[in-house]
Amino acid sequence: MFELLKTDGAARRGRLTTPHGVVETPAFMPVGTRATVKSLGPDDLVAAGSQIVLANTYHLFMRPGHALVRELGGLHRFMAWPGPILTDSGGFQVFSLSKLRTVDEEGVRFRSPVDGSLHALTPELSIEVQHALGADVIHPLDEFLANPATREDTERSLERTLRWARRSQDAHARGPGGQALFGIVQGGAYADLRVRAARETVALGFDGYAVGGMAVGEPKPVMYELTATVTALLPSGQPRYLMGVGKPEDLVESVARGIDMFDCVLPTRNARNGQAFTRDGTLTIKQARYERDPAPLDADCSCYTCRNFSRAYLRHLYMADELLAYRLLSLHNVSFFNGLMSAMRAAIEGGAFEPFRARFFSRYAVSSDVVSREDISSAEA
Amino acid sequence: MFELLKTDGAARRGRLTTPHGVVETPAFMPVGTRATVKSLGPDDLVAAGSQIVLANTYHLFMRPGHALVRELGGLHRFMAWPGPILTDSGGFQVFSLSKLRTVDEEGVRFRSPVDGSLHALTPELSIEVQHALGADVIHPLDEFLANPATREDTERSLERTLRWARRSQDAHARGPGGQALFGIVQGGAYADLRVRAARETVALGFDGYAVGGMAVGEPKPVMYELTATVTALLPSGQPRYLMGVGKPEDLVESVARGIDMFDCVLPTRNARNGQAFTRDGTLTIKQARYERDPAPLDADCSCYTCRNFSRAYLRHLYMADELLAYRLLSLHNVSFFNGLMSAMRAAIEGGAFEPFRARFFSRYAVSSDVVSREDISSAEA
Repeated sequence: MFELLKTDGAARRGRLTTPHGVVETPAFMPVGTRATVKSLGPDDLVAAGSQIVLANTYHLFMRPGHALVRELGGLHRFMAWPGPILTDSGGFQVFSLSKLRTVDEEGVRFRSPVDGSLHALTPELSIEVQHALGADVIHPLDEFLANPATREDTERSLERTLRWARRSQDAHARGPGGQALFGIVQGGAYADLRVRAARETVALGFDGYAVGGMAVGEPKPVMYELTATVTALLPSGQPRYLMGVGKPEDLVESVARGIDMFDCVLPTRNARNGQAFTRDGTLTIKQARYERDPAPLDADCSCYTCRNFSRAYLRHLYMADELLAYRLLSLHNVSFFNGLMSAMRAAIEGGAFEPFRARFFSRYAVSSDVVSREDISSAEA
Repeated sequence: MFELLKTDGAARRGRLTTPHGVVETPAFMPVGTRATVKSLGPDDLVAAGSQIVLANTYHLFMRPGHALVRELGGLHRFMAWPGPILTDSGGFQVFSLSKLRTVDEEGVRFRSPVDGSLHALTPELSIEVQHALGADVIHPLDEFLANPATREDTERSLERTLRWARRSQDAHARGPGGQALFGIVQGGAYADLRVRAARETVALGFDGYAVGGMAVGEPKPVMYELTATVTALLPSGQPRYLMGVGKPEDLVESVARGIDMFDCVLPTRNARNGQAFTRDGTLTIKQARYERDPAPLDADCSCYTCRNFSRAYLRHLYMADELLAYRLLSLHNVSFFNGLMSAMRAAIEGGAFEPFRARFFSRYAVSSDVVSREDISSAEA
């Protein structure tokens, strides 16, 4: 189901074929936490050039519940997105969002932030939930450690994640079929543990490989280096997904290191905070300098927002708390991320990824060289 | 610029031609208070079948200011709505929303709710602001009295409104031309004052006539009767606009009494409160009965929302405070209002308005027989 079409250095141009359509890679997935990419309809996602969206297993498990989604015909029909969908395992969210959680070999127990009810999530249940949701790509429950974590804790955790991965494979084998199962490579900030995790996850054999748990607070070069360490060990014929990443510069640097798929809340969350991505960097729409600015957000962009609306109008909407501001800024930002991926695909096809990368960085103002929490966020609470 | 194509009893089928396009009447105008119909883009308005939108002079005068809108190319370009636009005079809002207001013959002084700054609105300034905004149909500043008002106060007020109307005509004559100026018929709940207001407003000579100040708290039949009293005195060759009205049943009853144009916040405001309009009446999406309901909001509706989404999904979005809920419910409600107008136009054309009206009421559950504040609201604060 994955075809590697062309390489250019470590950068890869591929094609992922799913039951709900084709994803040309490298690809970006906007985050539809609760079966909706915040403020955007499926029509907007199509207009923004999205090929695939991510939904969060944890959030949908909590509300409205996977049984209801299955009863309504599965996630594709429920959210009226006929294209490919990827769900995460719920691991990251259950560890970072829920309260009163206890973890043991069996799984995680926690309280719902929606109604305080008690729940347990096991590798088997996560797969069962994802079978009910029916996404095209699903993931095994993994343990997530907050950064910084000791080497000892990280090693213990990756061993548990590997055992849970095997249990997930068994559970998946009992499922309806048709859904791809990706393995998750953990290992924290320890290169040797990343190597071990990559080798042992590959040995288990998955349809693709996710790289998880990139460390908040680390310098960006460390994250990029760890990514390269992992991708070097993954089979070339299968897709690689860097979970929750990231900023435009991270996408370019990670494609340069062999990553095929990304997801991040940045385009939509930052849109709701009034920040737009442009070829020159980011732009904060509430600034007084845009009050009378007749230009579009990005003169090079051909999205619906940039074709029709001035910065002055978008600033007016944003300052007045008008809901349309969130939709128009989100639509632009998702278009920008998808457009960046499309430009990288073209560059790789033409054997010109390095000049593309140089051109990108000659223009784009990078905002930080440290990994922040929002750079690797896969869910919008 | 107005053509009366057909009548059926007092119901009228007409066509209003403006510099930005044609409006087939009877027509409904969604309310775009701050140069945006809340939660909907111009693309949504087109998809919902809107021919014309209303914007509020008072709100745009306060923020972002008419000078800025003019500088950005006028309201049509600013909000990227290329079709016809109508602006009210700001009278209703300055009297109902602003603080510390003092009224005299010259105009109204008030404090901005945005920044507390002092402003004065005169008939001349209202016209100047509306010239800057550049709507296709504009209105003279009128005085608005809260209900109940004594006969004496109402009479004094309508006399002032008439004097302001003359001043507005003089100011309009000094303008750029091309914009239609409608007169506003006041007179409160007093039929004889409505008669006087109608006669004297018509004597001044306008491009169309608005009926303003329908009384909150009155029984609906009283409002309908006053409407009929006024329309009987208006010239048949010009459009009649019932300001701020109303519920679906009010639209049908007022078309039956010769009204051509309506605006109201109900479809968008109620959408944000989770209420959808259907042929059977209204539906409150948060109700538990819709939790697993796979049906669309209205089985007879062909809007984007009803073509794609179940009540269960819309309820899920609404319960999770997802922004998409507001857009999808607003899109449906505006489509419903526009569809109702379209059905009435077809009925009048076919000489079958009375059977249409009977059929509508045999199915639609009317929720109240008293005029409520929200039934006659022309602005969304």
